[in-house]
Amino acid sequence: MTTAHYQGEDKFYVSVDCIIVGFTGKDLTVLLGKREIEPDRGKWSLMGGFVKPRESINEAAARVLTESSGIHPLFMEQVGAYGDVSRDTADRVISVAYYSLVDMQSFKQELADEHHVAWTKLGEIPDLVSDHKKMISDAFIRLKRIATVQPVIFHLLPEKFTLPQLQHLYEALYQTSLDKRNFRKKIHALELLKKLNEKDKKSSKRGAFYYCIHKEKYNQLVKTGFSLSL
Amino acid sequence: MTTAHYQGEDKFYVSVDCIIVGFTGKDLTVLLGKREIEPDRGKWSLMGGFVKPRESINEAAARVLTESSGIHPLFMEQVGAYGDVSRDTADRVISVAYYSLVDMQSFKQELADEHHVAWTKLGEIPDLVSDHKKMISDAFIRLKRIATVQPVIFHLLPEKFTLPQLQHLYEALYQTSLDKRNFRKKIHALELLKKLNEKDKKSSKRGAFYYCIHKEKYNQLVKTGFSLSL
Repeated sequence: MTTAHYQGEDKFYVSVDCIIVGFTGKDLTVLLGKREIEPDRGKWSLMGGFVKPRESINEAAARVLTESSGIHPLFMEQVGAYGDVSRDTADRVISVAYYSLVDMQSFKQELADEHHVAWTKLGEIPDLVSDHKKMISDAFIRLKRIATVQPVIFHLLPEKFTLPQLQHLYEALYQTSLDKRNFRKKIHALELLKKLNEKDKKSSKRGAFYYCIHKEKYNQLVKTGFSLSL
Repeated sequence: MTTAHYQGEDKFYVSVDCIIVGFTGKDLTVLLGKREIEPDRGKWSLMGGFVKPRESINEAAARVLTESSGIHPLFMEQVGAYGDVSRDTADRVISVAYYSLVDMQSFKQELADEHHVAWTKLGEIPDLVSDHKKMISDAFIRLKRIATVQPVIFHLLPEKFTLPQLQHLYEALYQTSLDKRNFRKKIHALELLKKLNEKDKKSSKRGAFYYCIHKEKYNQLVKTGFSLSL
């Protein structure tokens, strides 16, 4: 339903840019791609796209995530809108950044070859177009904060995972090393994990038990929040 | 520098909406106005306006704040972008919400009469156009969180204020009543206040000493953050 109420006002291109975050078991990674359109074709960039008339900006972000990774969003949060006048060298584009946490095992490898996308370690992000580095840094500020009050970072892990893996995840996020006993005490206190009767024997001789998420408790903690200080 | 790179993509109206927050000494308030354009002319709404080609979205928000209140922004933070397809009944408009904390004493009253704007208590917000209620609620979620880690809510107070005023501010924000002794102990521990040799005698017979902010310490705490649990 378009009327002429706002005629005379200016319109702008609006895009979404997705910070798609994965975890290798050791490092946090971000899915980057070589830009496929001019200007700056071939330069590294976040996964992005223009918003279309019949989709909300949230829907646009979910579409971009799925198109570029094959993954349907389980957790996605808006980082914010970026609207400096000259942030895009070709034209005025206002962009809304979103980060999503995905299990890298769900990634469709054929998309990587097709679209020149690659998982890049957080510590090794190359020069990116426009303000994409700032978007990544803002996303991780949010993620670090939300990880202390909500159990969302478990979306980065496969369905079954070991406690060493989980500890590596927190260590990668906060770029610190944590005391094993203390870490496990705090994690167990959340009553969020279910121990499985199966071991990962690849990483150590003794093996490490697999755990999975206690779904009901997870949903409860998403609602109530918690306070985790590591 | 406009080129044809993005031709074929759609453009959208982009607006900013400002949650301008004040404090009466007892209640938190939001500056609302009666919408001056169709559709929904005369309905209560946040202070907003369309983004213009030569201003960033941050600049647009600062302009709207100043135009509608006469106040120059000392503290303003983006809440996020709102982009549901049908959020505006007249046309597709993507809006970016910002909240700002202002000293109500700086408000230009003549603007209230000119533009039909009014400070409205947080507990008495009427029906608003579009998603403006959601914007306010999202802004206060952010504000509650930031108030525990940064000293920004002092922007809501006049230059000199009393400890009872400060306590009322925290009580209004968290909608709770706080123990006076405990509150003062925690506030003094921040070493942020400077006691003045002057009393407010309007509020009680004994009077309450005025305080002001220790500017250097304030700037330091903005950088380092703190952890205040009341």
